[in-house]
Amino acid sequence: MAETIFSKILRGDIPCHRVYEDQAVLAFLDINPIARGHTLVIPKETAETLDQLSDDAAAAIGRVLPRLARAVMAVTGATAYNVLQNNGSAAHQAVFHVHFHIIPMHDDGTGLGIGWHPRTLDGGADLAKAIAEKL
Amino acid sequence: MAETIFSKILRGDIPCHRVYEDQAVLAFLDINPIARGHTLVIPKETAETLDQLSDDAAAAIGRVLPRLARAVMAVTGATAYNVLQNNGSAAHQAVFHVHFHIIPMHDDGTGLGIGWHPRTLDGGADLAKAIAEKL
Repeated sequence: MAETIFSKILRGDIPCHRVYEDQAVLAFLDINPIARGHTLVIPKETAETLDQLSDDAAAAIGRVLPRLARAVMAVTGATAYNVLQNNGSAAHQAVFHVHFHIIPMHDDGTGLGIGWHPRTLDGGADLAKAIAEKL
Repeated sequence: MAETIFSKILRGDIPCHRVYEDQAVLAFLDINPIARGHTLVIPKETAETLDQLSDDAAAAIGRVLPRLARAVMAVTGATAYNVLQNNGSAAHQAVFHVHFHIIPMHDDGTGLGIGWHPRTLDGGADLAKAIAEKL
């Protein structure tokens, strides 16, 4: 897979504003934040998208999300926030190394904009069965 | 905390289109999907927001996200998708039991709409230091 800016950050070739690190995970500030405190959480394991990430690396990220969210809220004063993880350029992924965004929602309106257009769940039972059978 | 539709689903009082279940996690189809295959992943542990969830429950969710994403992609044919987790009504949370959305992005344009307005990282070093100190 292609070299990304995040693999360079992990190697220390490019600096970052680091907020957390453990054996499997690095968290740092997004250099182009959409809100004050916008934080990225990435696995040290190399994977372009979440579906390609190992279970252990994905669990290690999940484990630290609550404490990172608490720290971001405490420092920024935000009481609402979104966690977003994009896979594929059609889904707005820009850097092809798995990353979770923690994005505070601030009173001034800065934060994640979400477009949400619900539909009906046609064929739900068949679809659920098909997904369950894949697992 | 208030009873939610998800605690009723977890108890079996309300049916769902279940796609996955283990000791700590339940996944099922969103009844108001924004895209075909839109799946919810919730902890069995009761917590309103991710920052209130235990490390173990958050790790259990993280661990199953890759395989759930692979199954949703395989069944729907989508190659791009978003994982979204909202906390607080200001951040579009509607059900106050932690849930992760897996939302395929389809060729017909159905999927998650994202509003993204980057800013500059003013005071990045101080902010990173403050968050790191909270952790």
